Amino acid sequence: MLNTVLNVKPVFLRRFCSYKSISNVLKASQIGEEISIQGWVKSVRKQKNVTFCDINDGSTVKHLQVVLQDKSNIKITVGSSVQAFGTVCKSPKGVNEIEAKNITVIGECDIEKGYPFAPRKQYAPEYIREYLHLRPKTKKFSSVLRVRHGATLAFHNYLDRNGYVCVQTPILTSNDCEGAGEVFKVVPDNNNLLKSMAKENVNIEDAYFDKKSFLTVSGQLHLETAAHALKQVYCFGPAFRAENSQSRHHLSEFYMLELEKAFLTSLDNLLEITEDLIKGVTKHLLDRYTDDIYVCTENKHNFSWVDKKFKVLTYFEAADIVTNKLSKPLKYKGAFSKEHELALTEYFENIPVFVINWPKLEKPFYMKEIEDSNVAAFDLLVPQIGELVGGSLREDNYEKLQSRLPPNHYLDWYLDLRKFGNVPTGGFGLGFERYIQFILGMHNIKDSIPFPRWPHNCDF
Amino acid sequence: MLNTVLNVKPVFLRRFCSYKSISNVLKASQIGEEISIQGWVKSVRKQKNVTFCDINDGSTVKHLQVVLQDKSNIKITVGSSVQAFGTVCKSPKGVNEIEAKNITVIGECDIEKGYPFAPRKQYAPEYIREYLHLRPKTKKFSSVLRVRHGATLAFHNYLDRNGYVCVQTPILTSNDCEGAGEVFKVVPDNNNLLKSMAKENVNIEDAYFDKKSFLTVSGQLHLETAAHALKQVYCFGPAFRAENSQSRHHLSEFYMLELEKAFLTSLDNLLEITEDLIKGVTKHLLDRYTDDIYVCTENKHNFSWVDKKFKVLTYFEAADIVTNKLSKPLKYKGAFSKEHELALTEYFENIPVFVINWPKLEKPFYMKEIEDSNVAAFDLLVPQIGELVGGSLREDNYEKLQSRLPPNHYLDWYLDLRKFGNVPTGGFGLGFERYIQFILGMHNIKDSIPFPRWPHNCDF
Repeated sequence: MLNTVLNVKPVFLRRFCSYKSISNVLKASQIGEEISIQGWVKSVRKQKNVTFCDINDGSTVKHLQVVLQDKSNIKITVGSSVQAFGTVCKSPKGVNEIEAKNITVIGECDIEKGYPFAPRKQYAPEYIREYLHLRPKTKKFSSVLRVRHGATLAFHNYLDRNGYVCVQTPILTSNDCEGAGEVFKVVPDNNNLLKSMAKENVNIEDAYFDKKSFLTVSGQLHLETAAHALKQVYCFGPAFRAENSQSRHHLSEFYMLELEKAFLTSLDNLLEITEDLIKGVTKHLLDRYTDDIYVCTENKHNFSWVDKKFKVLTYFEAADIVTNKLSKPLKYKGAFSKEHELALTEYFENIPVFVINWPKLEKPFYMKEIEDSNVAAFDLLVPQIGELVGGSLREDNYEKLQSRLPPNHYLDWYLDLRKFGNVPTGGFGLGFERYIQFILGMHNIKDSIPFPRWPHNCDF
Repeated sequence: MLNTVLNVKPVFLRRFCSYKSISNVLKASQIGEEISIQGWVKSVRKQKNVTFCDINDGSTVKHLQVVLQDKSNIKITVGSSVQAFGTVCKSPKGVNEIEAKNITVIGECDIEKGYPFAPRKQYAPEYIREYLHLRPKTKKFSSVLRVRHGATLAFHNYLDRNGYVCVQTPILTSNDCEGAGEVFKVVPDNNNLLKSMAKENVNIEDAYFDKKSFLTVSGQLHLETAAHALKQVYCFGPAFRAENSQSRHHLSEFYMLELEKAFLTSLDNLLEITEDLIKGVTKHLLDRYTDDIYVCTENKHNFSWVDKKFKVLTYFEAADIVTNKLSKPLKYKGAFSKEHELALTEYFENIPVFVINWPKLEKPFYMKEIEDSNVAAFDLLVPQIGELVGGSLREDNYEKLQSRLPPNHYLDWYLDLRKFGNVPTGGFGLGFERYIQFILGMHNIKDSIPFPRWPHNCDF
């Protein structure tokens, strides 16, 4: 008897103090176990004396059904936050559910007070995008967030396992390395501060850093400084472009995974690294985020490419295919448009395509020159998206690099890397949102990032 | 005979095509194995007909000794990049080394051509900081980079294991959430672009986003939108302050780990999460990055705190100790200065100290009010550094939050979170560079980040 009484207290405490995640209840809870859960109501059905609630807590895309024998006529609306306590049992379909002893509403949710998502309604992504702060509450976008998380971790862990070191390259930089005038400048929003820091011969606007400073467009040049000591390095962070593009493929703020490897002399080797990374990360996601990918792609997506060798063709071969076989002539300076890129992957039956050995004039100054005024560069084109990765061997010849530097550069430090313990290096940049778009089959890049920024849009 | 000839080719190929990492050679290579390695020369000693080179390739802080029976008088200087081929053998000290058949210099390195680091010389951090692009080549800083990498991965993986989802909050924001005028504004560096995007009633400078936009000072408010759907979330990325501080504790660009947890009602619970995270990550680093930590701390560092319970005291108790026991009266508005913070951790024998329940006026508007005009907030103070983490429960009462919002705010979206499926939340922000400083015993925060940015300094 004493034993029984002593046993009651801890069980009682556990009931109200410790909550289980819904993914855990669905996967691992035992029938008959008494548990508490917390989450948001995703749907409610009322029958006579029984209320069925689907609850989600973000730990999985799946909902947990909570069944309450309800005589009190408790008001539960979709979107409310609740906690429930009850016993795990099996539903007729064989899924764990909760036979609730009680459900408590913590925060109400009311369509009439302006909640923009009505139950059992489908909304267009453009509509949902107007409510970025509530968007994580929608089913598909919560899956996007979990897959983004999974992809972030998978890239880091793949590279760690393969001996790469993550080096956070700077967001603020005095280089405008691409020189295309597509950079944001950065200035303290405080004129008194600027005045107090003023110096002769420095524009007052530039007084904070003594020089004009910008948001990074790429971490590559900075990353090379670390590759010249740690051999294998990468960075994963935000980059910025001040373009006026409203396309479904562009953002003003986006994430890039950039990798740089020293003692690298072969473009083939770089293609292998790229292909293996993308396949490795994707396989991991298909395995661990099956449900989320299923929801986002509506199970219509074809992942057969993860087991196939990517195609490799030269720029010359690719140009020949788009011009002659697909009758889409190249325009300005021989560049590929998005239309060309998509046509090429379609031509190869939706297998990703490496296009290698580009004309020098198409590519930035730091790419390694090879025969015929070409550079040892590649673009990786993927179905529906076009360019996902761009990379190259870097020019490691001091004089050649010097002769190709943009005018008025501040890149003597970059040249120095070719002067002191120089090694051949190569690397690439992968557009993270494009990767998310690619594997989730998303039409618009703005739906692949929590707070998209694009021209005329920087809400919140 | 045929067999032998056939065998030669693959062995020959392997010799020159496949290189081993030095960490691998030191740990796992077998005596007698023939291998190739690549790296940079860290020291050279010449005796009559033998050259001893210490080579490092960034895979470990340890060097690999390569011994060359050298009749050719090959010129090898410190800092050069080389590759070597030879046989693994044991040194007299029992460490793996290479008896080299050859060493090839790939890129020379010459003090006389301006290489700033002479062999066998120690330099002050301030001197090394003048050469940020070559700094990764120095022993200590390459260790810092590996430990930063390790800490980045460890934070991500700890939080993943504990069910937190990484949500990349925006760098560009239209909120100036702290309202302290310490923000950088962001403007396209292209007047033609701005003109082409101009709208009536919008300042020409703000034409790109239709409103003033800034660099983030914290991802917290944005992170809360995700916590209200995914329950447990975090972000890890750059944040910015436009202050004119030359102190050893501040950067204009720094990294923060921010965490937010929904259904959180107890500050104690938040302290537990914080303490467990910091101890968990630190133990992992002590285990995996032993050599790097040893080099950075010169083995003088005391990590006994990882096995001790952190102290907890209220702001009132802490203020009493610094004022009365340590005779360091508080100044302006009762805030703690760095001096007070350091004195407190010293008083508690270098155990980290949580200071909880702060006066409301000391803290931002979003912190949850409790009794006596206090807020449920904490600062975690650590030895030598002071504040490492700041956190709180968030005000979840709609009316109270509304009444405390800064004037002219654009935070209706933040209020909305308290309107639709509201839940109590809490979280914290941890200064990543301060954490690195803390565990590596580094005096100046500028030596804990690859490209430090501070007033008058934004080189590269």
